[in-house]
Amino acid sequence: MENYNTPALKRELSRYVSGYVDGEGCFCVSFSKRGKLKVGWETKPSLSVSQNSDRREVLDIIQKLFGCGFIRRDYSDKTLKYEIRSLEDLIEKIIPHFEKFPMISGKQKDFILFSDICKRMKNGSHLTTEGFRKIIQLAYQMNGSGKRKFTESKIISTL
Amino acid sequence: MENYNTPALKRELSRYVSGYVDGEGCFCVSFSKRGKLKVGWETKPSLSVSQNSDRREVLDIIQKLFGCGFIRRDYSDKTLKYEIRSLEDLIEKIIPHFEKFPMISGKQKDFILFSDICKRMKNGSHLTTEGFRKIIQLAYQMNGSGKRKFTESKIISTL
Repeated sequence: MENYNTPALKRELSRYVSGYVDGEGCFCVSFSKRGKLKVGWETKPSLSVSQNSDRREVLDIIQKLFGCGFIRRDYSDKTLKYEIRSLEDLIEKIIPHFEKFPMISGKQKDFILFSDICKRMKNGSHLTTEGFRKIIQLAYQMNGSGKRKFTESKIISTL
Repeated sequence: MENYNTPALKRELSRYVSGYVDGEGCFCVSFSKRGKLKVGWETKPSLSVSQNSDRREVLDIIQKLFGCGFIRRDYSDKTLKYEIRSLEDLIEKIIPHFEKFPMISGKQKDFILFSDICKRMKNGSHLTTEGFRKIIQLAYQMNGSGKRKFTESKIISTL
């Protein structure tokens, strides 16, 4: 798998990367208070993949395959984190990848919710109270919602 | 990826599983004191893949693909662990898989050391002092050796 310059090899790498992200990746939609926005909250979707820094090469390969995102050092736990936060990149590059090469664990369910949220954001739904309310409901069905700073009802109560 | 009953689909699943194991798997060779053995130590190679129990399905699929190993609950951290500890299965099923569908991170280096050790064990090297000494040297080049109960020099000093 040294070179991926044929469609067949790129397809094989794509499967591999879906498997890797199924294990190590996280689809996440977080919310930050933003008084300047009409709904009072910013909606922030991201895909992140963590890795110990001695195995950076796999993040470089994934970044090259997706053609977007940044690798940064996470000082909290001494890992490297490859992140895609641009809504445009998520919609044009990341979502089509996982639609074509789905994950086989329950993480695919998170991805489907994530994809739904990103597509609603593209239409500006997150900027209206009704649209934002629906996004909150979808986001809090995703795995890992237990670790959130704000509860669903806390955010809803501010709308 | 619901059915994998053609060679092409099985090949795609195999790439996926190599990616998943690259993220979540651990090739390990551990050593236990065994007074009854001539060298005084038992050599125990294993591949293990951990997963939160709410995502068991991916472990089931990997187990079916490899056709060996067991899934057990790990009470220490509330995860499920899929493990292959049989030397025969490691040599006949696991090692050929990762030779054909290699990992792209530094974990592949661990695999090569792991494979070397398993093949030496098949020839009985771990039961002779000289062979065991070489196996210890190889095993302590593998990642994660920092978490070991015994240091390399501690084991060597008993031979």
